Amino acid sequence: MILELDEYSEVPIFQQIHDQIVFGIARGELPPGTALASVRSLAMDLAINPATVKKAYDLLKAEGVIVTTRRDGSMVIEPGEPTPEQVAQLEGDLKVSLARALAQGMDPQATKEIFQNVLNQFRPAN
Amino acid sequence: MILELDEYSEVPIFQQIHDQIVFGIARGELPPGTALASVRSLAMDLAINPATVKKAYDLLKAEGVIVTTRRDGSMVIEPGEPTPEQVAQLEGDLKVSLARALAQGMDPQATKEIFQNVLNQFRPAN
Repeated sequence: MILELDEYSEVPIFQQIHDQIVFGIARGELPPGTALASVRSLAMDLAINPATVKKAYDLLKAEGVIVTTRRDGSMVIEPGEPTPEQVAQLEGDLKVSLARALAQGMDPQATKEIFQNVLNQFRPAN
Repeated sequence: MILELDEYSEVPIFQQIHDQIVFGIARGELPPGTALASVRSLAMDLAINPATVKKAYDLLKAEGVIVTTRRDGSMVIEPGEPTPEQVAQLEGDLKVSLARALAQGMDPQATKEIFQNVLNQFRPAN
């Protein structure tokens, strides 16, 4: 998977790296067990500071999406049952995003269609 | 509407103020035209720095959820048709939240149910 960074975006670079890896996993392009580039080599490829890559990888680790071992480096986890904290985070994120959209005048049915379209990007079968 | 702040939360205070006002609007507790407390008086009530309240109000204004006039202070807007930027923001937010949940092993159907439950908190009819 090739990461494409937008240096003019308001989204911080570490967040862009994080998001693209998460999108790749959700789309099935990075299946469980896939090895990620080392922090150092990805930083070199992208011509950015290794600390920026490390920040993205640390966030992915904290979210339970990748694991890092001394022997094998970083790889995509084989997910188990989501933890209550992970479910609560999704609920909290959706609550803020949805409340703002409704306050902006969006129709509830329209928000459901947007949600379904986004879901289809990742798992066409659902 | 009474704001309840959690000083031990990881969520910044300005964000808590923002979120609670948005939730109040989405739940219909703060209908269009509702006057918000002035920055100064809300800061006094909550015993916090006025700059923190101003930061929350500025974000609400940038999102198109409230307006502030010299004459009437801040009030909840009467929403019109959402702008393309507002729709794009919802799509982007949902994309990140959903991709992370799927990468964590959440079932697509489970994410739909969580979305519907959150929506029901705001608009029971939908």
